[in-house]
Amino acid sequence: MGSAEATLSEIVGAAGAHVPRLLGQVEARLRTLAAGHGPVLAEHAGDTIAAGGKRMRPLLVLLAAGPGAANEPDLIASAAAIELIHSATLVHDDVLDGAHLRRGVPTVWSRGGRDLAVATGDLLFSRAFAEVARIGSLEAVRSLSRATSALAEGELLQRQDAWNPAVPIERYLLRCELKTARLFEAACELGAQVARLSDAQVAELGGFGRALGLAFQLLDDVIDVAGEASLTGKHRGTDLLDGTVTLPLILARERDAGLAAIDMRSIATREQADALCERIAQTGALDEARARALAIVAAAKDTLGGLPLQDGQRRALTLVADSVADRRA
Amino acid sequence: MGSAEATLSEIVGAAGAHVPRLLGQVEARLRTLAAGHGPVLAEHAGDTIAAGGKRMRPLLVLLAAGPGAANEPDLIASAAAIELIHSATLVHDDVLDGAHLRRGVPTVWSRGGRDLAVATGDLLFSRAFAEVARIGSLEAVRSLSRATSALAEGELLQRQDAWNPAVPIERYLLRCELKTARLFEAACELGAQVARLSDAQVAELGGFGRALGLAFQLLDDVIDVAGEASLTGKHRGTDLLDGTVTLPLILARERDAGLAAIDMRSIATREQADALCERIAQTGALDEARARALAIVAAAKDTLGGLPLQDGQRRALTLVADSVADRRA
Repeated sequence: MGSAEATLSEIVGAAGAHVPRLLGQVEARLRTLAAGHGPVLAEHAGDTIAAGGKRMRPLLVLLAAGPGAANEPDLIASAAAIELIHSATLVHDDVLDGAHLRRGVPTVWSRGGRDLAVATGDLLFSRAFAEVARIGSLEAVRSLSRATSALAEGELLQRQDAWNPAVPIERYLLRCELKTARLFEAACELGAQVARLSDAQVAELGGFGRALGLAFQLLDDVIDVAGEASLTGKHRGTDLLDGTVTLPLILARERDAGLAAIDMRSIATREQADALCERIAQTGALDEARARALAIVAAAKDTLGGLPLQDGQRRALTLVADSVADRRA
Repeated sequence: MGSAEATLSEIVGAAGAHVPRLLGQVEARLRTLAAGHGPVLAEHAGDTIAAGGKRMRPLLVLLAAGPGAANEPDLIASAAAIELIHSATLVHDDVLDGAHLRRGVPTVWSRGGRDLAVATGDLLFSRAFAEVARIGSLEAVRSLSRATSALAEGELLQRQDAWNPAVPIERYLLRCELKTARLFEAACELGAQVARLSDAQVAELGGFGRALGLAFQLLDDVIDVAGEASLTGKHRGTDLLDGTVTLPLILARERDAGLAAIDMRSIATREQADALCERIAQTGALDEARARALAIVAAAKDTLGGLPLQDGQRRALTLVADSVADRRA
């Protein structure tokens, strides 16, 4: 998180002081929403929201809107809604994955059981829609419901393809798009909508967000194989252990016939997962996967040139793209 | 389900032939929505929707709107959205309860695992919001998000109060309101909104739905203690086994000190649950709980007199209230 925070000061330098001010208000709004629905939600949802990480998605909402966005309350509500959906997804993902820790903090699932986690996720989900309904924009509701449908479809796809290492790259990319890219897209759409950009510009900024999200997920999957627990807060090879087939494995299997012959279900311990990660890295698959992600980021940055953005705004969005490309944890 | 179906013909007789026609279109819309998101959802969500039961909530949407509702597509979308939320709740509830059967059909959870069930529920949830966003009414989005927030809060409350037989009646009633009554309320609100009734009338019809939902849940809880598996498709005392404290137990504990001393966690087998159900019934608690529910239904029917409804519409809503009061399974 350290390097992303360092970048945040650069982003603010480009985008303007309204960004940290509004991000602060988004945090306050998230805390209010977590606190307003009884002590159980306040505890579990509050912790989930607090552990949410880099606030990449709210940042995209603010940057897509640009510095002159007339309606700050709508912008804050949009950013909070997107982050609530992200938090809901994390809670439900932890149920699915049986994850005990997220960023070193015990998950709702591990503390309260899956019952509580399912209900907490549902509530965060509902509050997100209530939040965009407050804005009074049906377009925002539509963007959000498209993104949440995609999230669930992506989750279904992932479960369907679990333990199947022969899944085609296209299918993997579709899953990344559904699971991650569409919410990044919605973040940019919402920001652009609040700033009252034209439909075409909303779509173009949405496309930028979508590409960024896709790269983000690809790199996330690279990190799961390459990463160290000290940086990521979780063990290496967790995807391998829960049967999630990602790009590094898909590429490595093309390069190493012996590796391709391994039955994923035989990978049952952290040591076995670690050894398989090492073997994947030796094929060069991580470098190729990272190169693909960086190419997507570069193409996304190119699209910014054609948009009628303010200079600082364009620079800030470019820096966000760079921070996605640079992430190591 | 037999008696409710018998009543449906009476309701149609009062409300008019548009009701079964529109209900048929709601079914078609639900099938389309289930089919439009890949084979996995089509299978699991389709079965869930198909097993959904009496369509009480869509019926309330149609009846609250009355026969002259100008915009039938909006009415169908509203009814479908409400039923999608109900279906999503069923899928997530089955995850929480570890239920293997619903209405005699294997649950998504039991067939696909809780991963699939959580994601299927999330998708049904998202599609509901997409469906009301299509209508183009922010009021509808707000009604739906209020109801879904309440649903999740109710679920959290239920988990929080699990295994605590000393829970006060007020707390139990609040849980019923959150878990059940608010979605009935939203059903009536949406129908009244599509019919362009005044805000006051929307609220009054919402109140009718809310009371009906509360009674519905009270009677559901009575049936769980009184019922027979042949009628309900599930075993007696399931609430007792999963630690859900309902009105019959709360009332029975006031009447039978020996029963009050029983540790709920000691009830671990169907036979023990059956014996406790019998003991609860012997205190007269079921009769009192049923009487409370019927009083709520009667009061709800009284409120219909003050609303500017068409005669057939008022008669149909009264019959729905009677069908709630009469339900035995």
